[in-house]
Amino acid sequence: MTNQQILLAARPTGLPKESDFRLVESPIPVPVEGEFLVRAIYLSVDPYMRGRMNDRKSYIEPVALGAVMGGESVGRVVQSKHADYPEGSTVVGQFGWQEYAVSDGRGVRQVDPSLGPISTALHVLGMPGLTAYFCLFDTCQFQAGDTVVVSAAAGAVGSTVGQLVKLSGGRAVGIAGSDEKIDWITGPLGFDGGLNYKTTDNYVEGLKPLCPDGIDVYYDNVGGPITDAVFPLLNLRARIGICGQISQYNLEEPEYGPRLLWHLIVKRATIRGFLVFDYFDRAAEGFGKLAGWLREGRLQYRERITDGIENGPRAFIEMLQGANIGKQLVRVSQE
Amino acid sequence: MTNQQILLAARPTGLPKESDFRLVESPIPVPVEGEFLVRAIYLSVDPYMRGRMNDRKSYIEPVALGAVMGGESVGRVVQSKHADYPEGSTVVGQFGWQEYAVSDGRGVRQVDPSLGPISTALHVLGMPGLTAYFCLFDTCQFQAGDTVVVSAAAGAVGSTVGQLVKLSGGRAVGIAGSDEKIDWITGPLGFDGGLNYKTTDNYVEGLKPLCPDGIDVYYDNVGGPITDAVFPLLNLRARIGICGQISQYNLEEPEYGPRLLWHLIVKRATIRGFLVFDYFDRAAEGFGKLAGWLREGRLQYRERITDGIENGPRAFIEMLQGANIGKQLVRVSQE
Repeated sequence: MTNQQILLAARPTGLPKESDFRLVESPIPVPVEGEFLVRAIYLSVDPYMRGRMNDRKSYIEPVALGAVMGGESVGRVVQSKHADYPEGSTVVGQFGWQEYAVSDGRGVRQVDPSLGPISTALHVLGMPGLTAYFCLFDTCQFQAGDTVVVSAAAGAVGSTVGQLVKLSGGRAVGIAGSDEKIDWITGPLGFDGGLNYKTTDNYVEGLKPLCPDGIDVYYDNVGGPITDAVFPLLNLRARIGICGQISQYNLEEPEYGPRLLWHLIVKRATIRGFLVFDYFDRAAEGFGKLAGWLREGRLQYRERITDGIENGPRAFIEMLQGANIGKQLVRVSQE
Repeated sequence: MTNQQILLAARPTGLPKESDFRLVESPIPVPVEGEFLVRAIYLSVDPYMRGRMNDRKSYIEPVALGAVMGGESVGRVVQSKHADYPEGSTVVGQFGWQEYAVSDGRGVRQVDPSLGPISTALHVLGMPGLTAYFCLFDTCQFQAGDTVVVSAAAGAVGSTVGQLVKLSGGRAVGIAGSDEKIDWITGPLGFDGGLNYKTTDNYVEGLKPLCPDGIDVYYDNVGGPITDAVFPLLNLRARIGICGQISQYNLEEPEYGPRLLWHLIVKRATIRGFLVFDYFDRAAEGFGKLAGWLREGRLQYRERITDGIENGPRAFIEMLQGANIGKQLVRVSQE
């Protein structure tokens, strides 16, 4: 038995290629006293990981060349020398893109399978869920009655944001890149409006009829021209939460866009950057709310599952290109 | 006796020209019951006025073509049928660019000449003073120990901002456009550092040694490339107050700049637009503080006075080009 691992083989230029990764087999690590061995079931594939592939210090350390690609996974403890993590328990953590990982429990969270399928620990009951919750309610200071526009609205975060808005008495408008995505968010998820930016020439004109009372909150996952289009429609004291800037992650040179800060004076608006790490001490609050809504059937999700760790790089690249509706996962082993 | 007035004759393209204004003489208006007549002493000349010359709705109505150019002035009541504004009292208000104006008192503030020269009602004890105070302490959430960078640092607002920072236990770094301006702010005003952007090629490298502990607050009066340079140096939870965007006011087409919002995620920083109107209900607090510091000799100012209302347009254009150190005023009559 060996441990299949995906290493970072090369620093990507622009959109990553499969050759930027390398699949290797290594011995399965052995836990010592105070450690346990996890067998991964689902790997998480998230836009922020693109940043970790660059050799540039950011809020998170870059992955070293030749090291196991970083990322969260949910898995099962298959061998344990740690009292808090008995064999058979389900855990989620930054175990990286590999079948087996040893951990001492730091940064690891126990998954309660009674709350929902264990894969949800990587989205609606995981980091993307907390991200949606805290960026919307705290960073964006959402209030009932607000019109909220969210970009990448059919992704793991965006699809949750719009549902939280609807649950909380707001108007939710999503921007996404296919009619199928728009149909999902405006159908089952209950968004009030959706804009397919790939079939829209003028984003401002496209958003206007969807936001008849202007925009109070913009939850930004993408940046770039979509974000530019929101500024002219902002209401007085509007709030913009910068959660992600997917459109910029693959750029080698900074993109240029129209200068927009003067809008903030006219609208007395606020733009604030969000990082979920800052809310880990309030995770219980967020998880409690999200799990409650999920249990009540008021929160829906969708998963796109790619089988086989060897297909992780492809799944990641496809996610960066917008192939996923809902959460992109890689299934490494059966539950 | 006639009333000399400066009218808006044409909507400027780019930097205003003197021919965009017209000097006319009209009869001196006569106050009716509940009104009073003001004779202007100093006209205020401020960057925001450039916006009012465009035919574009903003936070303030545009000046109509052929109407008296808008703006604040300080003057003396020379005829009164209003009990609250007796003859001889000094007032400040939006009287426009003219020698005489009639008012019913709405939006007019009494000036207490014992607090300082009456011209200060147009700067350190006026709107620019309140702007500096509330944008620094409220919008930018200044805290003792913060490093504050302020642009247009030798202007009426910027020069006050840096002094408030020094009075309150912070590090003040100013950006301005001449060595004479830098000498003033780093000499008599006590700023810790100054950058002459006109003799600096790389603004980021220029700012770095002046901000050895990074930037906690950026008080932005200018926008454009100077503002771009601040982003890489922002500290965690930095705050940017957008008070003005002088570099953009004369542009016919939106300028393009590098997209910078991703910095906000990494730094969890906030950008917020400021408009002094929002603080009029707290004006007494601001004026009280500013007047106290002025009385104690802890707040300095400088004025550039241009004589003659006919020279108002030239003074305004020169101010937009940065000719002034401190507050640009137009003296219409002697005190």
